[in-house]
Amino acid sequence: MMRTRPLKVALLGCGVVGSEVARIMTTHADDLAARIGAPVELAGVAVRRPDKVREGIAAELITTDATALVKRGDIDVVVEVIGGVEPARTLIRTAFEHGASVVSANKALLAQDGAGLYAAAEEHGKDLYYEAAVAGAIPLIRPLRESLAGDKINRVMGIVNGTTNFILDKMDTTGAGYQEALDEATALGYAEADPTADVEGYDAAAKAAILAGIAFHTRVRLDDVYREGMTEVTAADFASAKRMGCTIKLLAICERAADGESVTARVHPAMIPLSHPLASVREAYNAVFVEAEAAGRLMFYGPGAGGSPTASAVLGDLVAVCRNRLNEATGPGESAYTQLPVSPMGEVVTRYHISLDVADKPGVLAQVATVFAEHGVSIDTVRQQGKDGEASLVVVTHRAPDAALSGTVEALRKLDTVRGVASIMRVEGE
Amino acid sequence: MMRTRPLKVALLGCGVVGSEVARIMTTHADDLAARIGAPVELAGVAVRRPDKVREGIAAELITTDATALVKRGDIDVVVEVIGGVEPARTLIRTAFEHGASVVSANKALLAQDGAGLYAAAEEHGKDLYYEAAVAGAIPLIRPLRESLAGDKINRVMGIVNGTTNFILDKMDTTGAGYQEALDEATALGYAEADPTADVEGYDAAAKAAILAGIAFHTRVRLDDVYREGMTEVTAADFASAKRMGCTIKLLAICERAADGESVTARVHPAMIPLSHPLASVREAYNAVFVEAEAAGRLMFYGPGAGGSPTASAVLGDLVAVCRNRLNEATGPGESAYTQLPVSPMGEVVTRYHISLDVADKPGVLAQVATVFAEHGVSIDTVRQQGKDGEASLVVVTHRAPDAALSGTVEALRKLDTVRGVASIMRVEGE
Repeated sequence: MMRTRPLKVALLGCGVVGSEVARIMTTHADDLAARIGAPVELAGVAVRRPDKVREGIAAELITTDATALVKRGDIDVVVEVIGGVEPARTLIRTAFEHGASVVSANKALLAQDGAGLYAAAEEHGKDLYYEAAVAGAIPLIRPLRESLAGDKINRVMGIVNGTTNFILDKMDTTGAGYQEALDEATALGYAEADPTADVEGYDAAAKAAILAGIAFHTRVRLDDVYREGMTEVTAADFASAKRMGCTIKLLAICERAADGESVTARVHPAMIPLSHPLASVREAYNAVFVEAEAAGRLMFYGPGAGGSPTASAVLGDLVAVCRNRLNEATGPGESAYTQLPVSPMGEVVTRYHISLDVADKPGVLAQVATVFAEHGVSIDTVRQQGKDGEASLVVVTHRAPDAALSGTVEALRKLDTVRGVASIMRVEGE
Repeated sequence: MMRTRPLKVALLGCGVVGSEVARIMTTHADDLAARIGAPVELAGVAVRRPDKVREGIAAELITTDATALVKRGDIDVVVEVIGGVEPARTLIRTAFEHGASVVSANKALLAQDGAGLYAAAEEHGKDLYYEAAVAGAIPLIRPLRESLAGDKINRVMGIVNGTTNFILDKMDTTGAGYQEALDEATALGYAEADPTADVEGYDAAAKAAILAGIAFHTRVRLDDVYREGMTEVTAADFASAKRMGCTIKLLAICERAADGESVTARVHPAMIPLSHPLASVREAYNAVFVEAEAAGRLMFYGPGAGGSPTASAVLGDLVAVCRNRLNEATGPGESAYTQLPVSPMGEVVTRYHISLDVADKPGVLAQVATVFAEHGVSIDTVRQQGKDGEASLVVVTHRAPDAALSGTVEALRKLDTVRGVASIMRVEGE
């Protein structure tokens, strides 16, 4: 039943991921052919530096003209692993126009213009697959788009950035400060020379936008995602978290409001109980927790980045797209049939852990408690600790809207007896 | 773009899972229609007891004649949630013959005759989907069949039976014995009146056969799966496990041999380190660990049984099969293009924890160690403990073939100084 004419694949980008995709296509060609029902052939590889030696890739396949490659007309599938918005977007659109389906690992592009790309794919009757864009090798996009297509997803909460999880895990286990842990991550190759995209949460925010859109069947733009990095998490925060039986993770959280009429998407550091499955995700691993109405609580765990894991996700998509092509069919397209508004961060309801530096004298707790009450934020526990005429007050709240908490903190700062707000951290996962 | 003629679904079985499938099809009809691209309609429900009140299902849909229902000819998808081999198998084959695709939750049938059903589906150009057959709501079949289709899976190891995990978790956390924990599981509805299929590992073995076949692209029959239940696990075993920093789980383990030329599939209780992600799977939850060449180590976690979670998996498949139908295409069929032999248990290589009751006199350890050496089983650690003239000896081995360990134990039983072999347990997950 094997078709003998091979399906032709054009590879855009041949860095860490692309070279691994090419390698596996060669070394596992027989398996791929058996699973697809036809052989696949690497028909061209677009690179920026054509002179670099690329083991296992025939020199005549290498080109610097990506546009000409996607315009060839005989390409069945374009695999885009360049990253970034342009020229990737234009190349993908051109690929659709010239008859190819597309597998992409490009989270930035999907988060920014997923809707536009889906529309282009649909206009030309082609596939757009992008499992590798979120959480590397972890099957997540396909389970959300397909396995849970008969369910109602209410919440997606995950660790979707390996660099920051490595740093936070180091801080947790060794007591190191942020800078020290970042230096180790950089030395070990887990963090880039400029770690901004990771540590400031931009990378996670792009993934949150993609996940929220798929989970809630609506459109969530990158700008809709509230974002707070983890550069200000301190060793003292970890000590506080430990006292609460918690650890600290940088979480991407996408939620459907209780009334079902709106959604939220946010990225920020948060305390989570040690008993929560996400708490035990170590080093640079990723994990995503999904709560669905019928399925209940699911978790997906694995390596969130790296050449081989990302290539695994790309190749899984490649097999699916090739099968669709042989079937003369397409897989699921965009499913954004609801237009749910994305609520601002102020409407998010969660719990908070607030550390205050206060004057060590009677009546301070009463003053502070009054401010919380006036803003409608109910206190769960308070812990007072005095030392050398100064004192600290740690307040953990019940669930309250973010705006109410912000108002509370603003008012606390105006109290004479409050010398400073040492830290504010959300508490999730209960 | 919505097609208005509905796709017709016949439901075989209306118990805990079937009634939930019917309920969600009704309450979430708009969402399902939007995701599929056409409405789905419940066209008939085959039951054994037609007089039972079934809320939300029109009386005229109920029939006791399942055969007539699948033969109607206007049915697009048959959802089989009867369970057991017959009449389910004949009904599914009849459904294919009369033009329907099939979604099944039937692990026993898939394990026994997956190949025959796939062949029937292919002969008639229809789909056979069965995500719900293994690990309930956890997306596992689809990730293995599709997401990892471009990778090489070397190992699947999981907790795939919720009843036994509940019992073992109770034993671990409360120190209860097997019978006491089983009684609690029965009282809470986690164990059936006759728990044999669960506690003797038959249920897990069926799932192991299905998983091994998909993971390794070969055929693994139920008879190929080595099976050992967990009824002989004792509180003493848990105490031993704790001393080793381990807990005990009933595991389904499917492995590709190091040379890639054969596979194994087995179900038995085993010690695993507390640091292993499977160790923290509590209560009746399921989790499956997958090791793939490129992807690395992945884990999938969630509720492994229950009406709603299983219905979620069934409905995800229903959406996929309906989409395929509209596309006039089919999803992936059987992928068993390799004919890898399934090696017997004797060739499985793993570690062992053996507790011996021995005479408390000099030279016993030397005798015992000699027996291990003669059988080529290398010892990792030995712990001796004396009490009241008797003594116990706990031996943990390095990796050795199961046959070598069996030979060792047989020889140990013949030693005068060995009064008994208190327990033998495999050690996994390192």
